[in-house]
Order: sequence, then C-alpha cells, then structure tokens
Amino acid sequence: MLVVGELINASRKAIGAAIKEQNVEFIQKVAKDQFVAGAHYIDVNAGIFVDKEPEYLAWLVKTVQEVVDCPCCLDSPDPKAIAAAHAVHKGVPMINSISLEKARYEALVPVLAGTDLKVVALCMSDDGMPETMADRLKIADKLINGLVQNNVPISNIYVDPLVQPVSVNNTFAMEFINSVEAIMNQFKGVHTMCGLSNISYGLPERKFMNRGFAVMAIAKGLDGMIVDPLDKMMMASIVTAESLAGRDAYCANYLKAFRNKQFEF
Amino acid sequence: MLVVGELINASRKAIGAAIKEQNVEFIQKVAKDQFVAGAHYIDVNAGIFVDKEPEYLAWLVKTVQEVVDCPCCLDSPDPKAIAAAHAVHKGVPMINSISLEKARYEALVPVLAGTDLKVVALCMSDDGMPETMADRLKIADKLINGLVQNNVPISNIYVDPLVQPVSVNNTFAMEFINSVEAIMNQFKGVHTMCGLSNISYGLPERKFMNRGFAVMAIAKGLDGMIVDPLDKMMMASIVTAESLAGRDAYCANYLKAFRNKQFEF
Repeated sequence: MLVVGELINASRKAIGAAIKEQNVEFIQKVAKDQFVAGAHYIDVNAGIFVDKEPEYLAWLVKTVQEVVDCPCCLDSPDPKAIAAAHAVHKGVPMINSISLEKARYEALVPVLAGTDLKVVALCMSDDGMPETMADRLKIADKLINGLVQNNVPISNIYVDPLVQPVSVNNTFAMEFINSVEAIMNQFKGVHTMCGLSNISYGLPERKFMNRGFAVMAIAKGLDGMIVDPLDKMMMASIVTAESLAGRDAYCANYLKAFRNKQFEF
Repeated sequence: MLVVGELINASRKAIGAAIKEQNVEFIQKVAKDQFVAGAHYIDVNAGIFVDKEPEYLAWLVKTVQEVVDCPCCLDSPDPKAIAAAHAVHKGVPMINSISLEKARYEALVPVLAGTDLKVVALCMSDDGMPETMADRLKIADKLINGLVQNNVPISNIYVDPLVQPVSVNNTFAMEFINSVEAIMNQFKGVHTMCGLSNISYGLPERKFMNRGFAVMAIAKGLDGMIVDPLDKMMMASIVTAESLAGRDAYCANYLKAFRNKQFEF
C-alpha cells in the first residue's frame, strides 16, 4: 500500500497561513510527522495562491525534502507550478493529477510524456463526475491508453476512480470499489489510489465510515491512498485490511505494527 | 443483516455454570441484553452436557423465550436435542447446523425435510476443513441441492463457508469472502452466514481484525452473522458496512444508530 500524506494542503487554514508566512519549521514538522507515521509520499499543494503557486510549490518541495528522505506528490493541475516544483525536487515525484478534462489533459501530457514521473490519473472528464462503474472504466481506458501511448509506463499510473458520497446515492460506494477491482483486472500492472473522505460527506462519524470504506476498497485491490497518516485508527485499518487481503506474508506487518504500538487498534 | 447472538453457549464458563444451576435470571439477562442490542435470533448451546443436552437445550429455549420475543438458533448436531428444544419453541427456529459430514447430514436431513425450519449449512465434510473457494463451492453445492431436494426452501438455507485463520495461511480471508460472493451469485435466493472470530486466531487485537473482516465480507454479500451483539464496535462496523454496501436506503439505519447512540463509532 502506497500511502500519500495529505496534510500539507494550502486549503487547510494553518497550512495556508504557514505557506504565506514561509514558516519553514511548521511545514517541516507536518512533513516529518507524516513520514514517521508511514507516508511514502508527501503531498504538497499551494493551489489557493493563484499567482504565486509555482514559487510556493517549489518552496514546499525544498522545505519538505530538507527534513524527510522521501519524494513529494506535486498536487496541481498547472504545468508551470509542476515544472517549478519538479526543478528543485530530489528523486522522482508523483504528479497529482491528470484527468480527461481537455484543458488539464493537454497541459499535462507534455509534462509526463517519455518521463519516469508517477502520475495520479483522475477519472473525471468534461462530461462531469462519473457515477457508475461503466462511466469510470470508459475514462480510465482513455487515460491509461493516452498515457501509455505517450510512453508513460503503465506501472507509473495510479488511477483514481473518484469517490462519491454514499449519502447522495447508496450505490456510490459499491460502484467505486467494483471499479477498483475492474481496473486492476483489466489493465494489468496499473495501480489504483484515491482520497477516501468524500465517501462520508454529509454523514456523522465520518472517520469511522472512511475506515470501513478503506477496508472494503483494499479487499478489492486498491493499492494506494491519499490519507492523513496521523489518523492511527485509519493506519491500523489499512495494515489489518492488507493482512486480510493476503498482502502481508505471515501477518508480519500486522504483528510489527502491534508490537511497536504504532497504530491504535 | 441477520444477527444471531452467540453468547448463550455452554462452552463459555459462566453460561455452562448457569445452565447446570438452572439459573433462570442469569440466562434471561444475557438473552435480553442481546435482543436489545439488535440480535434477531438467540443462539442456544448446551453441547458440553452430553447426557442432558436435550433437557438443557429445551430449558434454554423456554427460559429465553419467556423474556424476549424472538426465535432461537438451536445449536446442536444432535437430532434428539433439536427435537426436544423444537417441541417447546414458539415460532420457527433456526437449526445450527447441518454439514456434509455423513453422520451429521443423515441425522439432520429427516429433521429438516419438508419443514419451514431455517438452517445453517456448514461447508464441512468428512474430508476435513475446506481451504479454497473451490473446496467450499463443492460442499455448498451438495448441501444446497440435498436440502432443496428434501423440500427445504432455498431462502431458508444459510450457508456458512467456514472461516479459517489468516495467521495459518494468508489466502484464507480472501478465499472465504470470495466464496461468499460466489455462493450468493451461483445459488440465487440462498443466504450466507458465519462466525467471524476464527479469522484472527493466533493474532493480537483480535476484535479489531474481526471487525475489518466483517466489513469485507459484507461488501461481498454476507447477510448473516453469529456475533456478540454487545460488541458495540462490531455492531457499528456492521451498520456502516451495510450502508457502504448499498443495503441501507438514505443511510437511514446508519443515521438512526448514530442518533440513538446505539453503537460505538
């Protein structure tokens, strides 16, 4: 399971303020905490700063990588911001995200073509948000084929089938997890990943529902998540689900997490 | 989701003692607590009392049904014990359980044939415990066909694919939940049910793992469980998983459970 730590996002008030003030210490603490908690990538987002996004995104990458030895997930649809951040990035970043929306797709394909960049491919098009598995598969097919034809290795693609709230339509959770299964089966070598929290939009006890949804999605093959790695119950749910899904030989990671009191079971 | 409350089992020390002492009050409290917590059936088991099982099982049924308005799950492979308990049972009980083991199968088919009894059909044969999905489907096929040919309606059959510990073999959880899915798809109208706790045998934080496993199994179609309904986190996991699985219109049960502070999220 690839864990992308989601906390360094300018739309969160304290992070937005820290970016504006160029508060190195604050950002570095959030980066370190996520890394120690198990994040494999640190997402960086400066999307609220329209004019300064390239400058701020590059600053975030430098600030984060000064203290943690892991790559960043460059969270922007803007090729200028991605180029600026990529220029200062050590190692290979992940781009979050391309989609089938025409403007976004055409802006990002040249950035990705022929590179070893990893990329989140969001199942969204100019026709709007997908609702059914069929909607998602149609978009995933076009995105994966488009990227592969531009010499992006399929193993560098992380398809995000796009989570929709189960409070809006009670088929939305199953349509999503069945999409994960279908994408993993139909496009051998591709990955799937997502943010989870949309699933519980409009409902109480959201974290509890998010965790249950994570467990279900892992059973269907999901192998990447954009989450808050400091949510110890979520991390415990992930390690448990991976053991149950047969991805943890001898339950070694489960036992290790328990011994180290790493998570809250 | 059909919830069978598992607590009145003579192999539990306090229950065994209460049965021996014919402690009506104690048994009735455990029955009431489970019913209030959401059990649809109360399992009754007097299996440790070899000679007195029929007498004690009948006593349990009478004692339980004096205080709760719900049927019992008669937990015995012995047709004499079942007959004695059935004779005093109000409404239609569930028999727990028939299997493909020759002696057990031949003893119980005459009890079930042509009746409206509900029955748990355990995927076990004289060849031992099933390990793979194929093992389970072969046994389920024979059990379902055998029962249906003896005029047991398919909708009264609850197939238990038999949970095996993931610590023994890391395929065991997936083989089980994939069996649930295959059984529900191949035998339209049949139900599936199981006890969960074997999944976590030999591991720490068993309740946490049991809950994750319940969530996965519900996503695959499991519609019955033999559980401790007083485990509020388990009950919260079940109601959450059912909402996610699209079996809870407008998330009404989830919202009700939250409002009533019925479970621990």
